Amino acid sequence: AAAVAASGGFPLAELALRRVLRESARDKTIFLHGQVGSGSGDGTDAVVILEKTPFQKGNVSELLKKHTKLQLQMSNDIYSTYSLYLPPELNEIKTTVVYPATDKHIQKYLHREVYLIQETGDDYKNITLPFIQSQSFSVQWVYNILEKKAEADRIIYENPDSANGFVLIPDFKWDQKQLDDLYLIAICHCRGIKSLRDLTAEHLPLLRSILKEGKEAVVKRFAIAGTQLRVYLHYLPSYYHLHVHFTALNYDAPGCCVERAHLLSDVIDNLELDSLYYQKRTLTFALRADEPLLKKFREAGRV
Amino acid sequence: AAAVAASGGFPLAELALRRVLRESARDKTIFLHGQVGSGSGDGTDAVVILEKTPFQKGNVSELLKKHTKLQLQMSNDIYSTYSLYLPPELNEIKTTVVYPATDKHIQKYLHREVYLIQETGDDYKNITLPFIQSQSFSVQWVYNILEKKAEADRIIYENPDSANGFVLIPDFKWDQKQLDDLYLIAICHCRGIKSLRDLTAEHLPLLRSILKEGKEAVVKRFAIAGTQLRVYLHYLPSYYHLHVHFTALNYDAPGCCVERAHLLSDVIDNLELDSLYYQKRTLTFALRADEPLLKKFREAGRV
Repeated sequence: AAAVAASGGFPLAELALRRVLRESARDKTIFLHGQVGSGSGDGTDAVVILEKTPFQKGNVSELLKKHTKLQLQMSNDIYSTYSLYLPPELNEIKTTVVYPATDKHIQKYLHREVYLIQETGDDYKNITLPFIQSQSFSVQWVYNILEKKAEADRIIYENPDSANGFVLIPDFKWDQKQLDDLYLIAICHCRGIKSLRDLTAEHLPLLRSILKEGKEAVVKRFAIAGTQLRVYLHYLPSYYHLHVHFTALNYDAPGCCVERAHLLSDVIDNLELDSLYYQKRTLTFALRADEPLLKKFREAGRV
Repeated sequence: AAAVAASGGFPLAELALRRVLRESARDKTIFLHGQVGSGSGDGTDAVVILEKTPFQKGNVSELLKKHTKLQLQMSNDIYSTYSLYLPPELNEIKTTVVYPATDKHIQKYLHREVYLIQETGDDYKNITLPFIQSQSFSVQWVYNILEKKAEADRIIYENPDSANGFVLIPDFKWDQKQLDDLYLIAICHCRGIKSLRDLTAEHLPLLRSILKEGKEAVVKRFAIAGTQLRVYLHYLPSYYHLHVHFTALNYDAPGCCVERAHLLSDVIDNLELDSLYYQKRTLTFALRADEPLLKKFREAGRV
């Protein structure tokens, strides 16, 4: 605990668990809502995300040798299963903390039913856009990156051009310890492009530079070929400053599903076909039951 | 090690690692090929599968309190990430052993690299179509379903029209024990539509009937609303007789990724826009290193 305090860390052992917000048995993740300092009256909310880390090729031999216990569970012919126990340092857990957390953060991670929306161009203008504008989501943390006020040492590549440039940076979700789950984000320098819906043919140079230079930077830094990358945008995005996801093709990344991801190469083809493609086109996305935007679509009789 | 031997266990610490067969960063699994007793000449093959276990709601509070170390990795505004270390007994690893293993077991788990193909309309005509025709994949099992010679009792819904009709049936991957991973397939009665590439505006009535009647049948039979379904085609498909996938939107189904799935509603929109859309359009898909079609694309200098 002393080491933690010295490093400006979070008082995890003193966190009072309020509830489990969500969990995924497949991903081995759990999302928690807890409070710090709740012993003396009202505590401060925190969201804590725990995720078991992927195995690393480099230390798997060591891991087999240094296990503390191997306990037989089941045996049948040539097949058997065990519980294996490892020293803590060989089996770490990635922990993400949002602290202090607002109710919005807590709601964001809470599990809910999901509904598919078919958003026409008019729906975007009449429902989604006014909603985004009314929320005034902060993207200060994005500007911090673009201005080198935060995470400057994490930048993989930058094209500094104010119109067609971007910063390529590891996504928070990637611990960078193995390439199998490589996850990078290209954030464009140009401000004011909220999402796919704002893109027209005038953005083609920007999009082409992200696709071409982003792939080249990944080859150079990680020796992963462009044909082994999935490069795409989210719609809806999680924040309204244009950014592009780069993930390892082999990695079944969260959010690469057909109802959220749009391949950058398809986006470029569509804008070449019709500059107003993304203004007119019906776009499909999923909304959780608690999302205020779903209520807006319901009120408009559109779901 | 003594305790292990006593329980009839596998000598894990003495396993000589031969290679990593496969790993999944998302699932937190790794598949190993190793040998036992290789010190004294030829060893005996084993496949060892390690999988991190899901978190349990019941002990997550204990886990937060009993951690051995919390090490700060990154901090930006209200967000921070850490490496968390736990006592071994709170962080077990599920281990599956196949021992002795044959070469067939080893091949089964071996990973193959995956490459992204950008198939233009011409590539389809010059490379993919001749390949499909040369393979003469059998779809007899599909005809058996359409003719009620097999699986007739599994049919959820049928529109018997020879041009615009289809059969809706549970996919093999779904055990039908819970609705969370609902997975149905609509197989069209019309023969000769190999894939997305063959679709034109003349197929719009067929596609609209699958989308509309398929959803209605799911509501009626399973009480799942159309807005909670993901309805899509695969390109490349796994067999060349047109079929449409219906999966629960909450279920992260295999093959619903952006580089393989095409939402039926988007397909309909695109054909309304341009009857020849899927003849002209560049389509993106992934091929494994051992697939013969990849070799054809390589020979043509297209990957």
